[in-house]
Amino acid sequence: MLGLMQDAPINLVSILQHAGRWHGEQEVVTQRVEGGIHRQTYAETLTRATSLAARLRDWGLRPGDRIATMGWNTHRHLECWYAVSGQGAVCHTLNPRLFVEQLNYIINHAGDRMIFVDLSFVDALIGRLDQLPTIEAVVVMTDRANMPVYDTGSVALLCYEDWAADTGASLEWPTLDDNTASSLCYTSGTTGDPKGVLYSHRANLLHAYASCLPDVFNLSARDTILMIVPMFHANSWGLAYAAPMVGAKLVLPGADMSGASVQRLITQESVTKAAGVPTVWNTLLDYLDETDLGLHPLREVVVGGAALPASMISTFRDRYQVGTIHAWGMTEMTPIGTFNRPKAGFDVLDAEGQLHQRLKQGRVPFGVDMKIVDDQDDDVPCDGETFGRLLVKGPWTIDRYYGDDASALAHGWFDTGDIATIDSEGYMQITDRAKDVVKSGGEWISSVAVENAAIGVPGVALAACIGASHPKWGERPLLLVQCRDGQSVAESDLQKALSASLAKWQLPDAVVFVDEIPLTAAGKIDKKPLRERYSSYLTSGQ
Amino acid sequence: MLGLMQDAPINLVSILQHAGRWHGEQEVVTQRVEGGIHRQTYAETLTRATSLAARLRDWGLRPGDRIATMGWNTHRHLECWYAVSGQGAVCHTLNPRLFVEQLNYIINHAGDRMIFVDLSFVDALIGRLDQLPTIEAVVVMTDRANMPVYDTGSVALLCYEDWAADTGASLEWPTLDDNTASSLCYTSGTTGDPKGVLYSHRANLLHAYASCLPDVFNLSARDTILMIVPMFHANSWGLAYAAPMVGAKLVLPGADMSGASVQRLITQESVTKAAGVPTVWNTLLDYLDETDLGLHPLREVVVGGAALPASMISTFRDRYQVGTIHAWGMTEMTPIGTFNRPKAGFDVLDAEGQLHQRLKQGRVPFGVDMKIVDDQDDDVPCDGETFGRLLVKGPWTIDRYYGDDASALAHGWFDTGDIATIDSEGYMQITDRAKDVVKSGGEWISSVAVENAAIGVPGVALAACIGASHPKWGERPLLLVQCRDGQSVAESDLQKALSASLAKWQLPDAVVFVDEIPLTAAGKIDKKPLRERYSSYLTSGQ
Repeated sequence: MLGLMQDAPINLVSILQHAGRWHGEQEVVTQRVEGGIHRQTYAETLTRATSLAARLRDWGLRPGDRIATMGWNTHRHLECWYAVSGQGAVCHTLNPRLFVEQLNYIINHAGDRMIFVDLSFVDALIGRLDQLPTIEAVVVMTDRANMPVYDTGSVALLCYEDWAADTGASLEWPTLDDNTASSLCYTSGTTGDPKGVLYSHRANLLHAYASCLPDVFNLSARDTILMIVPMFHANSWGLAYAAPMVGAKLVLPGADMSGASVQRLITQESVTKAAGVPTVWNTLLDYLDETDLGLHPLREVVVGGAALPASMISTFRDRYQVGTIHAWGMTEMTPIGTFNRPKAGFDVLDAEGQLHQRLKQGRVPFGVDMKIVDDQDDDVPCDGETFGRLLVKGPWTIDRYYGDDASALAHGWFDTGDIATIDSEGYMQITDRAKDVVKSGGEWISSVAVENAAIGVPGVALAACIGASHPKWGERPLLLVQCRDGQSVAESDLQKALSASLAKWQLPDAVVFVDEIPLTAAGKIDKKPLRERYSSYLTSGQ
Repeated sequence: MLGLMQDAPINLVSILQHAGRWHGEQEVVTQRVEGGIHRQTYAETLTRATSLAARLRDWGLRPGDRIATMGWNTHRHLECWYAVSGQGAVCHTLNPRLFVEQLNYIINHAGDRMIFVDLSFVDALIGRLDQLPTIEAVVVMTDRANMPVYDTGSVALLCYEDWAADTGASLEWPTLDDNTASSLCYTSGTTGDPKGVLYSHRANLLHAYASCLPDVFNLSARDTILMIVPMFHANSWGLAYAAPMVGAKLVLPGADMSGASVQRLITQESVTKAAGVPTVWNTLLDYLDETDLGLHPLREVVVGGAALPASMISTFRDRYQVGTIHAWGMTEMTPIGTFNRPKAGFDVLDAEGQLHQRLKQGRVPFGVDMKIVDDQDDDVPCDGETFGRLLVKGPWTIDRYYGDDASALAHGWFDTGDIATIDSEGYMQITDRAKDVVKSGGEWISSVAVENAAIGVPGVALAACIGASHPKWGERPLLLVQCRDGQSVAESDLQKALSASLAKWQLPDAVVFVDEIPLTAAGKIDKKPLRERYSSYLTSGQ
């Protein structure tokens, strides 16, 4: 038997309609790519998105078409999201930081018909349009005064403000199936081609509700959100939907995420909450250190994308009276997986216990389920100590990648590729990537834990821990160390230092000093060549 | 094109599964109908609900079956909600305070197969089972020690704890269509037969997310909720889903909503938030006045079901440091319509401005849309002054009543039957019921405003304002006054007093002193006979 409530299918544009109607006076503030600050209200944002949607319709946009964006966080980019998705087409965010070959692959794989591009990227894009055969039009997200001139041949070149922004056109937004695709974001894995995550209106809407909950972003109409996490990164943590859902003021930093820019936006726009990766916050804290400036009235930063360091918690708290919240997610999860908000029992912990707890990635909101399993897919204990492969599921977790016939799931669960613990209170902590964990007999040893212990030893510049083959244990940890220029470290000193923070069975069986530990293009340690070179070190001694 | 996120259909039991798994240690505390306090965790609640569901399945429960409950707020009642709905059957909450004839009509109209009943009501129910031909079984929500004995003929009589609570059975909860009916609640309108609102899993789930938002109930895992609003009243404001969704501790007062009981539960269980109608709060405040007791650590009460009086705001705030939040909704809206949480501009208002704002019913969360219209269904201005018929829509607003073929909507909107204003910030205020508002030319006059002005005049016991026929204006206000015993009031004094708070065109054309203003069984003024008697008073003079 079906219920008799209203047939009100989900279309994400209803979020912007709500903001335009019920928080019409609330501001969307953009640090323009062209320079200066631009202000408009949610009511104006709705009008402009509607105008853009009408233009797209007249241009020939069809349901399911992929429309790409290559842009910073700006009001125009925001308008694109709603105008495209709201008509049942797919808004495809491109990460401009990717290599050209990856970007070309992604655009062609998605079959994008149009690209909305910021001035920062237009030159590079135009230069390789001949490699992007599906592109019919390029819309430069700027005004006439700043519009560049190019010969783009048969590809239309349009100026956003001229073409789209103020047509005064109205539009009947379509009624969509809840599961209609809304947007597309590729993950650039370390191996293989990038893979596309095709979000749905339903996934994004449930995710937006969950995002605003007190135990997640905790957003209300009294908040001002600085959305630092780029709109081309992991669905921008869903904030482009969450903020207008509750009528929060939205501050968009454009192309400038420098410490000076972030500090100025926070204080001038009275930002209460901000979200970004640790690098952004380190840059900001360095800038504050140099300038002696403050962060008032900022109350809280949400840190995700990489682990939150303990020093960042204390610096934000002690110097700037700002809270830090550790969060974890992935592109495949729209992207929220866990948020580290305290439960009732948190207050009775001592300072050390609280810090220990806050460094974990957090607990799941309703809408995410998770578990940790061993290599036989059997559940392992949630005791805060036992490692397991982290599996997730729920209405905003991926089923399969764009263009794939096969599900990305096993028995209904998505394997995150992370190794984690879960404690008895439900707090999850990532301990390693699955491909990096060292499997020694039945025990798993975190390569990250070994590396963190080694990197603290004076004279060590870089440390990489890999699993080397072992006749009895299968794998045992092997530590590769690159010393600082002109310095050396005695292996016995290193082993002694490691013993202070690792259990005996976690200690590396050997340490190899190397001249240079290889890095990836992104500056991370590249373990692949190390494994090829050293995996038989413990058996062959070389 | 459809998105490629997981096919994770909505079943409300997933909320209890989430609570059981991720907030397993959190408590559900019940003031037992049999006396004393009962404690169990969410993990135990899930186990018990699963056990009950298995019993229902073995008994022969089919998808779509209506299973009634006639009970107070207890853990057993909570288990029924999840066990019944989670299997695709319909949990039908009966209001035991209704007249017997109404209850019989509702049970027979719904075709309930089974009733879960509390000890308080079992005697009356058993006595009229012969009038309830669809009932096959009665489950008394108690244990063996308290189980009464009856001869119920062919109707099975079961003891909840014996039959259902601890079978240890497991169960595969079914996968449901999002729109599957979950529960049923009848509204007892002032005219006509009661009408059933058939909620869906989708409506309740979206409503639960919205309920927990910072600008609605603002619920987190650190909260303890005292759910005073009865589970048989308006879907219990959705709290039976909202609290476990975020892992809040839930306190259920059972049959005792006295001031002493409510005060004791708040202080002994460390309640942080409570929800109920003004009557409950008046009773509590009277009790506190008599006893000099306090409410620590209560932070906030949510007041709905009737208008929040200004004196209640100040008493809670000044004497007990407790905030009050005005909310509005209706059974047909699952039931949340508006919540009065401040926007950013609230803080700059002076005390009078803040009070004026807080007495309004509030603004809509995402998921509700509303508008005010005139008799031609044209929108009227949202200026905080113009009256209009309040229309609503959204995914948790009713489409049609149970058993009706016709939609309850007009052009997609549900007419609340209320007259309201909406201000420029989106705050709605109920001014009258549609059937009571006086339509004078193009202007609508609130009968409530006229009555409130009259009731403040010394000597006036009761005042009723009705629209009387008028040759020029269609209707003009006529005020009927019942004086206090042995007192009299001069009409000129009355008109003078009314002039102080009403505009000239809102003043009644005439005042009629009557011996007795008729009341309904519920103690409210019954305007129907007054209209029959006095509607031609202004034209005929009698």
